[in-house]
Amino acid sequence: MINYINSRTNQKVVHASRLKDKKYIKEYKEFLIEGVKSLELAIKSGLVKEVFTLKELKLPYNIPQYLVTPEIIEKISINQNPEGVVTVCQLIPEKKPEKFNKVVYLDDISDPGNMGTLIRTALAFNYDAVILSDKCVSIYNPKVVAASKGAIFSIPILTGFLKDFKKDHKVIASTLSDKTIPLEKCKKIESFILVLGNEAHGISQEVIKLSDIFVKIPIDNIDSLNVAVAGGVLMYYFK
Amino acid sequence: MINYINSRTNQKVVHASRLKDKKYIKEYKEFLIEGVKSLELAIKSGLVKEVFTLKELKLPYNIPQYLVTPEIIEKISINQNPEGVVTVCQLIPEKKPEKFNKVVYLDDISDPGNMGTLIRTALAFNYDAVILSDKCVSIYNPKVVAASKGAIFSIPILTGFLKDFKKDHKVIASTLSDKTIPLEKCKKIESFILVLGNEAHGISQEVIKLSDIFVKIPIDNIDSLNVAVAGGVLMYYFK
Repeated sequence: MINYINSRTNQKVVHASRLKDKKYIKEYKEFLIEGVKSLELAIKSGLVKEVFTLKELKLPYNIPQYLVTPEIIEKISINQNPEGVVTVCQLIPEKKPEKFNKVVYLDDISDPGNMGTLIRTALAFNYDAVILSDKCVSIYNPKVVAASKGAIFSIPILTGFLKDFKKDHKVIASTLSDKTIPLEKCKKIESFILVLGNEAHGISQEVIKLSDIFVKIPIDNIDSLNVAVAGGVLMYYFK
Repeated sequence: MINYINSRTNQKVVHASRLKDKKYIKEYKEFLIEGVKSLELAIKSGLVKEVFTLKELKLPYNIPQYLVTPEIIEKISINQNPEGVVTVCQLIPEKKPEKFNKVVYLDDISDPGNMGTLIRTALAFNYDAVILSDKCVSIYNPKVVAASKGAIFSIPILTGFLKDFKKDHKVIASTLSDKTIPLEKCKKIESFILVLGNEAHGISQEVIKLSDIFVKIPIDNIDSLNVAVAGGVLMYYFK
């Protein structure tokens, strides 16, 4: 289904442009994604409502496709140099993961770039799910969506407190304590939840109390690694 | 030396606020850093000119310190929630690294967050230097400075083409080719240059021609990792 829209005040354009605002994301239960790669993963998830694009795309027939002007893309895109493809999606329903052995728990991650990158990395390294604490930034924040490169559609994302998910898992906390061991000395584990903490405050005390293994990536010269980088190194090691 | 400034139109404040603009960074050969942690590394490098702060700091006596109002910090800061400490620094002179065995080459990295994070990671994992190709984003871009967390002051950063730096180093390129091997199968090497490529286009052909080892981090479900995450995993592996 291909249609043409030329006006920035077209109702569909106005509606889409509102979805930059979290108030409307909540109200309409829809959000925006940008670019072709994210769109591919969104199509697989069955959550695409409609696509605004500068050039005709090969899409499944049942997805409405609107050929629009650069001015319209500029109006609905959050990027300064938009790729020319903006898609309206339905919110992602929480889905139960098939397996639940290799899990990442994000404890109050506040930077949207870090959050999206951590979800992208968890998907790439075949983790079974990502759990978000209540205070994490929303996965529908446009910068999370962009940094995840569509991964939010493909890996089960759950929300809640660590205790409610821990069964026979070992909880691995990336933090300093008297029990902390360097990563190289840490044994590989079958069933675990890897915890990564807030950029400024680290892992919360409640979560530390539930942790079994404390691990650090040995570093020098500087206080810490970026949490998305630390997460990448740890997820690769334990995968 | 502690002084007070209350006016947003004070000459020093106006001067500092101009340093958000790359034109003035070039003209005055000065740039801004934010926060206490970056300041600590800047002090060690001897490049601090003056500090604007909301609260008195313990600083070496020869560094001028201006106690200012939140409005002034807001004027000179690039952050939405500034930490309350903004420092004017001299540009960083290129310094020859003491050793040159473990080196990272950034080939046209364009995202400032990635660039700063990669420099921070290289310092944390004790790399000897970072070399930047000509088309990399400037290290004085405020987002690079912020993401590096002061690392730009502590690790030698050189600019130029790979060929001019390669001696007995093996060049390790993180890219796909018919010769690419998975990271786990890659031997540890004494003297190497690890190459990371542009976010959209990967490593340039000229650089690929100079490469000895082609390596990939095995991933599934998604096209690629974020380059700062891939860089972190690779730097950790080869460190």
